[in-house]
Amino acid sequence: MTTHIPTARCGCIDIHTHVVPHDFPAYVGSRAGAPWPSMREAQPCHRHVMVSGKVYRTVSNQAWDSEVRRADMERLGVARQVLSPMPELLSYWLDAEDGALLSRFLNETLANMVARAPERFSALGAAPLQDIDRAIREMEFAVGTLGLSGIEVGSNVGGVPIGDPRFWPFFEAAQACGAAIFVHPLRPAGMERLVGPASLEQIVAFPGEIGLAAASIVTGGLMSRFPRLRIALSHGGGAIQTLLPRMQFAWECQNALRDAMPVAPMEAARTLYYDDLLYSATAIRALLDTVGEDRLMIGTDYPFAIMDTDPAARVDSLGLSDAVREALRWRNAARWLNLA
Amino acid sequence: MTTHIPTARCGCIDIHTHVVPHDFPAYVGSRAGAPWPSMREAQPCHRHVMVSGKVYRTVSNQAWDSEVRRADMERLGVARQVLSPMPELLSYWLDAEDGALLSRFLNETLANMVARAPERFSALGAAPLQDIDRAIREMEFAVGTLGLSGIEVGSNVGGVPIGDPRFWPFFEAAQACGAAIFVHPLRPAGMERLVGPASLEQIVAFPGEIGLAAASIVTGGLMSRFPRLRIALSHGGGAIQTLLPRMQFAWECQNALRDAMPVAPMEAARTLYYDDLLYSATAIRALLDTVGEDRLMIGTDYPFAIMDTDPAARVDSLGLSDAVREALRWRNAARWLNLA
Repeated sequence: MTTHIPTARCGCIDIHTHVVPHDFPAYVGSRAGAPWPSMREAQPCHRHVMVSGKVYRTVSNQAWDSEVRRADMERLGVARQVLSPMPELLSYWLDAEDGALLSRFLNETLANMVARAPERFSALGAAPLQDIDRAIREMEFAVGTLGLSGIEVGSNVGGVPIGDPRFWPFFEAAQACGAAIFVHPLRPAGMERLVGPASLEQIVAFPGEIGLAAASIVTGGLMSRFPRLRIALSHGGGAIQTLLPRMQFAWECQNALRDAMPVAPMEAARTLYYDDLLYSATAIRALLDTVGEDRLMIGTDYPFAIMDTDPAARVDSLGLSDAVREALRWRNAARWLNLA
Repeated sequence: MTTHIPTARCGCIDIHTHVVPHDFPAYVGSRAGAPWPSMREAQPCHRHVMVSGKVYRTVSNQAWDSEVRRADMERLGVARQVLSPMPELLSYWLDAEDGALLSRFLNETLANMVARAPERFSALGAAPLQDIDRAIREMEFAVGTLGLSGIEVGSNVGGVPIGDPRFWPFFEAAQACGAAIFVHPLRPAGMERLVGPASLEQIVAFPGEIGLAAASIVTGGLMSRFPRLRIALSHGGGAIQTLLPRMQFAWECQNALRDAMPVAPMEAARTLYYDDLLYSATAIRALLDTVGEDRLMIGTDYPFAIMDTDPAARVDSLGLSDAVREALRWRNAARWLNLA
């Protein structure tokens, strides 16, 4: 994949933007009632994402139309979007064979979007982690053959946190093929603790879930095992910034925890990357202070309702030095993506 | 209850300290195998808390001995400890009648500790929230007759978050009788997301759980309903500081959320109190910045392994003005406790 990084005063790289294809192929598997997604016409410029006969979400043409996205990027001061599937499409609940087919379709869709504008788009594909061998094969195809930058993974797979050692073979292969990994909340823990409308799943449970995923990566020792991995957490790692000082304190005073973790929690967390999707200068500054200036990148959740609508102004609001500002705007993302 | 608040350069009030009685009365209920706690001798100065035939935790005499506590307080610069039961003792999983008996025993134990040194101790009792009518009666007895300052409640009761409207009658009564309410994590959500030793329940899952409890109070509208309630969240509200900006952002741009919540999330969160048990000046400052200088109090988790060991130095490390420093050291706590 040819990429182009201007060297001075670059526009922003937005590492957290989602894609929904205009259409999906018809289901060709053999499992009656499989939750295979499809699209249905909605109001002008919009389509319904249908799963199991219900509207999962209604999305606009921003979700699939590169021209619409590029006009938005111009307006937002975003030079490059990193495309990833709408997380629900990762579909870890499909049979592995069906999941592999869907991942392949998503990855080819993303690769086509990148191929038409490689100076504007990078992409993180899907891998069917319900079957780790298939997931490795699909990642190697997506990165090696299609030229994607890496893989978007859920915070958990069927309830198993992404830091669990059973996923180590996948991450070993990710390190070997140089795939950037983007961890995004999916089917979050804590749903039984919500009081209010259904949208609290995304609003309240997602940041807790990504925090737990980050904690599982830290306590599970993934980065000690595969130190060249380039893993990013969405939503600024959510709760992780409030968990880390407590984890560090406990690690320093409890032998059992120190025995289980060769590397201190704070040090492990500083080997991960984070987007800045925290909606608050206070929270972003606290994350910067906790994990370091070389770890943060812009992420907006484009094009969904909760998207941060002025990413450049968000970074400007932090009162950073020019060097740190440029690190957040694009330089950290270029390193995470391994852009030439 | 007679209390004494020196007016200038007071010592600290530590609102988050736990008590385990030296002994429990024998179980007199009729339910075979009820998880009624008992104590068993351990190493010198220590006792095992036994539940269902197993050691739940081994605690030192700091947990029950006021003289030992007072010596520690002298050393720590703590003028007043707010005593509350070790949360597992809230025992919402007991039959309601058993739960009421255990709550009564805990409340009398705490009242005795306060009676012997009212200038040093305040206390928050237990109420059997598995039966809301009994919980109201016990709270009214604990506050009205025994003179306790309020009630410690779990973040959830049998999985139902404390902000759920089914608990409104309890909170209505708490407002009426002037009880301070201290919310503490208990049986946290997200246990299935942990990778590592058992202590991660407290280290990683507790801050997420208290954040979800705080969010349920905010989104459930409790403080709009009972605006004179004085509710404090333990562990600095945990994840809530990273959830709030996202909740506020969503509230401002999504009609469904605004319809469900008459008061903005950030505004609702600023009517709650928080201890400072976040183990990091960065995190405490971010919480201060988010909820305001009149909302934070010292909390240490004395006498457990995870306790913050130098609360006065923690406050000093924040670089606050004298007025805000005094607010954190004791003034906010005195207001929350309604000390004369």
